Amino acid sequence: MTEDQQKQIAAEAAVTYIEDGMVVGLGTGSTAAKMVDLVGKRVKDGLDIIAIPTSEATAGQAKELGIRVVGFDEVKIIDLTIDGTDEVDPEMRLIKGGGGAHLREKIVASLSDRMIVIAENKKMVNQLGTFKLPVEVIPFAAGALLPKMEALGCHPEIRMKDSAPFRTDENNLIIDCAFEMIEDPENLALTLSTIPGVVEHGLFIDLADIVLIGTEDGVKKFSR
Amino acid sequence: MTEDQQKQIAAEAAVTYIEDGMVVGLGTGSTAAKMVDLVGKRVKDGLDIIAIPTSEATAGQAKELGIRVVGFDEVKIIDLTIDGTDEVDPEMRLIKGGGGAHLREKIVASLSDRMIVIAENKKMVNQLGTFKLPVEVIPFAAGALLPKMEALGCHPEIRMKDSAPFRTDENNLIIDCAFEMIEDPENLALTLSTIPGVVEHGLFIDLADIVLIGTEDGVKKFSR
Repeated sequence: MTEDQQKQIAAEAAVTYIEDGMVVGLGTGSTAAKMVDLVGKRVKDGLDIIAIPTSEATAGQAKELGIRVVGFDEVKIIDLTIDGTDEVDPEMRLIKGGGGAHLREKIVASLSDRMIVIAENKKMVNQLGTFKLPVEVIPFAAGALLPKMEALGCHPEIRMKDSAPFRTDENNLIIDCAFEMIEDPENLALTLSTIPGVVEHGLFIDLADIVLIGTEDGVKKFSR
Repeated sequence: MTEDQQKQIAAEAAVTYIEDGMVVGLGTGSTAAKMVDLVGKRVKDGLDIIAIPTSEATAGQAKELGIRVVGFDEVKIIDLTIDGTDEVDPEMRLIKGGGGAHLREKIVASLSDRMIVIAENKKMVNQLGTFKLPVEVIPFAAGALLPKMEALGCHPEIRMKDSAPFRTDENNLIIDCAFEMIEDPENLALTLSTIPGVVEHGLFIDLADIVLIGTEDGVKKFSR
């Protein structure tokens, strides 16, 4: 089974959790995009939901599929958020932000009753950190934050795109931090959160409730 | 002595700490503006420094006065930052952000060897919280963050200006949180820092090294 097919079966398993009347957070990235396609099909078949997208890209995709998209002014709570991940460990801690959308993704996940994470098999790791940890920072502070990040034990780099610094939906910069191994994700998350100029980091702790991994042998489910 | 005169003598006391060759962080607000004026005079008299301003407003004022202004790309460290405050308690903990510049102010203060805080007498309080705590938030999340702030025990309001939501230099919104009394500033600071969508809050803990308060009886100095 290809990685693409693994993503697909994880997405298919996830959308079965969506029920009529729900407010649903829609993630960003290649796996989430498959899920959004499937949600679009279910909406065409009569599913009645409201969606909160985690990026401009997902908002565009959802609207094209006829999914009703709203902002936080229009809803009080999010029942369920489904999103992909860049890494997930056995304790369901995540590294996200490879697509640069982890700020809105974390806002939506933190305001959701439940978060379902979907991914292909290779995203499941024993220890987080092979994937570079994305840290969204205020442009004003970026130059000064590079040595601060380095002092935390990583090799930091400002993310580039088309030979210019990559800008997030909020017009901030991303510092990709190559840790290789993150010994204590909880402690690192807290440290990063309290550094002035850091808007949001890609460590998602205590946010995922269900993880659905597409594998050669079908979908593996992890939950609290 | 008027409040304006109290601000002035605090600013005068502060600028005596500036020495040739220093990189100096310049605060924002009415008291900081008096300090920047005094720095401008000293620069005209031959003082050789580089300045990092904490807002577009201060950058403009400094440049007009002939002070050399740079960004973080050009300097490695800041020797000294001088800034005003909205409240300061006997443990030198601050509430800042009345002018909406506390994000850059905290970035600059956190990267400084020393921070000197200047204020008139009435800014000194026994307990923080009479001044509404400014919390800078991502516009995408503002609607959802109001109930989250309320749950922390305050009355939260999105700051307005000219009947539209006030925008910071980073184009974010401010939620002013009326706590009346903040029992545990350290704990509140940590809680706020870890809420996704909160960019920066106005509690400055362990940042001020010297506090200079202008009073009827001259300048009172507090230091670690």
